[in-house]
Amino acid sequence: MKLNCDMGESFGAWTMGKDAEVMPCIDMASIACGFHASDPVTMQKTVALAFEHGVTIGAHPGYPDLMGFGRRKFDCTDEELYAWLGYQIGALKGICRQQKAIVDYVKPHGALYNTMMKDMAVLKTVMRAVKAAAPGCPLVVMAIPERQPILDLAAEVGIDVMFEAFSDRAYDDEGFLVDRRIEGAVHGSADAIIKQVQQIVEHGSVTTLSGKTLKVDADTLCIHGDGPHASAVAQALKQWRANGAN
Amino acid sequence: MKLNCDMGESFGAWTMGKDAEVMPCIDMASIACGFHASDPVTMQKTVALAFEHGVTIGAHPGYPDLMGFGRRKFDCTDEELYAWLGYQIGALKGICRQQKAIVDYVKPHGALYNTMMKDMAVLKTVMRAVKAAAPGCPLVVMAIPERQPILDLAAEVGIDVMFEAFSDRAYDDEGFLVDRRIEGAVHGSADAIIKQVQQIVEHGSVTTLSGKTLKVDADTLCIHGDGPHASAVAQALKQWRANGAN
Amino acid sequence: MKLNCDMGESFGAWTMGKDAEVMPCIDMASIACGFHASDPVTMQKTVALAFEHGVTIGAHPGYPDLMGFGRRKFDCTDEELYAWLGYQIGALKGICRQQKAIVDYVKPHGALYNTMMKDMAVLKTVMRAVKAAAPGCPLVVMAIPERQPILDLAAEVGIDVMFEAFSDRAYDDEGFLVDRRIEGAVHGSADAIIKQVQQIVEHGSVTTLSGKTLKVDADTLCIHGDGPHASAVAQALKQWRANGAN
Amino acid sequence: MKLNCDMGESFGAWTMGKDAEVMPCIDMASIACGFHASDPVTMQKTVALAFEHGVTIGAHPGYPDLMGFGRRKFDCTDEELYAWLGYQIGALKGICRQQKAIVDYVKPHGALYNTMMKDMAVLKTVMRAVKAAAPGCPLVVMAIPERQPILDLAAEVGIDVMFEAFSDRAYDDEGFLVDRRIEGAVHGSADAIIKQVQQIVEHGSVTTLSGKTLKVDADTLCIHGDGPHASAVAQALKQWRANGAN
Repeated sequence: MKLNCDMGESFGAWTMGKDAEVMPCIDMASIACGFHASDPVTMQKTVALAFEHGVTIGAHPGYPDLMGFGRRKFDCTDEELYAWLGYQIGALKGICRQQKAIVDYVKPHGALYNTMMKDMAVLKTVMRAVKAAAPGCPLVVMAIPERQPILDLAAEVGIDVMFEAFSDRAYDDEGFLVDRRIEGAVHGSADAIIKQVQQIVEHGSVTTLSGKTLKVDADTLCIHGDGPHASAVAQALKQWRANGAN
Repeated sequence: MKLNCDMGESFGAWTMGKDAEVMPCIDMASIACGFHASDPVTMQKTVALAFEHGVTIGAHPGYPDLMGFGRRKFDCTDEELYAWLGYQIGALKGICRQQKAIVDYVKPHGALYNTMMKDMAVLKTVMRAVKAAAPGCPLVVMAIPERQPILDLAAEVGIDVMFEAFSDRAYDDEGFLVDRRIEGAVHGSADAIIKQVQQIVEHGSVTTLSGKTLKVDADTLCIHGDGPHASAVAQALKQWRANGAN
Repeated sequence: MKLNCDMGESFGAWTMGKDAEVMPCIDMASIACGFHASDPVTMQKTVALAFEHGVTIGAHPGYPDLMGFGRRKFDCTDEELYAWLGYQIGALKGICRQQKAIVDYVKPHGALYNTMMKDMAVLKTVMRAVKAAAPGCPLVVMAIPERQPILDLAAEVGIDVMFEAFSDRAYDDEGFLVDRRIEGAVHGSADAIIKQVQQIVEHGSVTTLSGKTLKVDADTLCIHGDGPHASAVAQALKQWRANGAN
Repeated sequence: MKLNCDMGESFGAWTMGKDAEVMPCIDMASIACGFHASDPVTMQKTVALAFEHGVTIGAHPGYPDLMGFGRRKFDCTDEELYAWLGYQIGALKGICRQQKAIVDYVKPHGALYNTMMKDMAVLKTVMRAVKAAAPGCPLVVMAIPERQPILDLAAEVGIDVMFEAFSDRAYDDEGFLVDRRIEGAVHGSADAIIKQVQQIVEHGSVTTLSGKTLKVDADTLCIHGDGPHASAVAQALKQWRANGAN
């Protein structure tokens, strides 16, 4: 199972995430594209860092909401969303091309990610936009229990998907992420994170916030580079994987 | 001689330019990329309009200054400028790719254009950034009298250039554009514009604001779509060209 | 009945509305504060124009969404909304103070206006924010049929309200504005506008899009300066009022 | 001598500065106003924090350049600068008024501060704008050796000034701040900072980067809350002052 992490989330003079520490530990870097975080120079440096460590580069587009970090629901038309994705994916590709690097997948950010997981019409727009702007690149979606409708839609649109599980976010009983505003939504300790990862990797399941066990069959595992334990967890996972965990 | 025009300069609810009127009359559409003007939906519609009329699409990147419309000098490092260009060119390419359209040239906007024409270090950064982000695409530069240094730099970087003359802007005695804040900088009447175009096309020269005659050898002629006479002039030029002017 | 109009909705190089034409015809200018439209120089010029014509100045704050012109629903907390209003009202006051002009009322814009009219918790936050940032200024709200709950809330918070009717927008059967995305939401002809105004002024009622007649008891009447008929309508109304209509 | 510190420089999800640690140690909080840093909620929280600790609140306006943190030279007209200052000062006043707090002084930020110190025409615009937007509030300027022209200009405009010295920035031989891009421009150790402060407080002088001694007669001393040693230095200074240093 591949480790993916949100990267390049600094903006101008503001730093976020320990990218230099985390990058050597991950397989896939989801790089913000300037709408909810990042700026062209940050993107350039993040692409260079990923390239240096042989980490696969993905576009991490979000809603055009810097002040809200793309975590706020955003009212938009299909036409807007389609164009916003083409713009952001293209922008990261432009930065990558300047360094002869390549964008290999797309993973939407924050509220856009959550919205597409709950609204099939939005998911379809995302799939169409990604397919047209980044032909051949898979879309990362959440490894929810009911994955067949997603696979059907992907087949209809003609795009591949990768299913992802979350290491440091609590799950609700439908298999979605618990809203960040609810207490317990984000695991605060490295222990809690490693425990959830272990369960995902070894048993293909998670324990929800209410205590229920849900099946989670994932191709990739998301860790967050802005958390206090990011690099510790990433290193633990890498070590553990090296020992044959998966 | 090809006609080029700045296009897609609307932003959100604000309209600028008569794109629908002007597009059928031009050969090259220089489309704003969201830093000084435009937004993804405007870019999408402008690309579609250009595509529909068989007009060549160019990226028209500018400084990140929406409030100043990219007309203000902007203090930045080479690293920033390089990344800003990669980002904007890539963004337009992303929008184009969604429609199977192609970016065929790059023409910087406003203050960035003026700065690169007066500072060879900036011009070199622009050339390097364009070459890396849009391999094979020529850079549009101003057809100033002293063009050899530009040609030498382009050869060194390994990029093609297109020289452009301006139909509706007054020239100073060094062959640069008169600053917009100076009276007479922008020709107000269709007559003045057509007269300048005629001189450029038939005699390869312009008359400067002070009355001097300068040699201008251009591959393309810029008209502005936000001027009051844009489509009238464009249609006159097209008619005139059809009659064998050039 | 006083005429109010959204003013100062230009942004940077983009012009919106015929402020110079409309200002002499109105009583109250609701001036955008830079979040959904306007910029400090535009605000300065608009304040000067209002001051010159003896027009009462109001703050017209909106959601922080320039690309969407504040017309898009915006997900925010009470704390955010409260601070956004304090910021925008203060900003206009700062511009006014530089000219010894005064802000005399507050009218929220676009989606914020519609949201506060449908959600009493939002309305309460708006009232509290306005009362604290602009003590003594009334809040303009829509003259819906069910006005008692609004009056009760205003009394509880300790703020005055002014009720407004719309000249150029269609009403739904609950007395709210028809969504702009629905056909017929905005009256396109001066005749339709003048007819609606006449009915509001003479009969205290409007005819909804479905044909129903609703009671509308208004202190002020909103016209839009970005419509094609703005100044024509404003002049007609002024003339008509001079003739003793109200 | 009063301690002042730039405060409220976070933006949305990005944190900058250790405001909670530093606030109890300072006398004057210069609060960013949303153009180069901060947002309304950050401003609100920073005002509340200053109010809680009895710290005097100042407006810290900057150029409209979030991506460059207001540290980049910015080309603008007097009219623009005047309006930008009115807007920002007013915005902070609006946030303060919501909490019954008061803006007591104005200190421009970054490149705007440096520009006004080198260009008397800009300084005059700043003085006029501050006087009109915040009557009675002094303007903080740098305690350069040649202070008489500043005092004369202030008298002409009719505004008070406060002279400030810097604890953690290197001085050049003209008494200005060394450009941040030059090595040694920012003191990296608490020792170096405390040494400079001691010299300013006890001897009314600084040692420039080249080793020259310059007279510095200051009313207030600036420390930076984004430096690694901010709170340590602030506490040392407070202790030292309590011991009768000044």
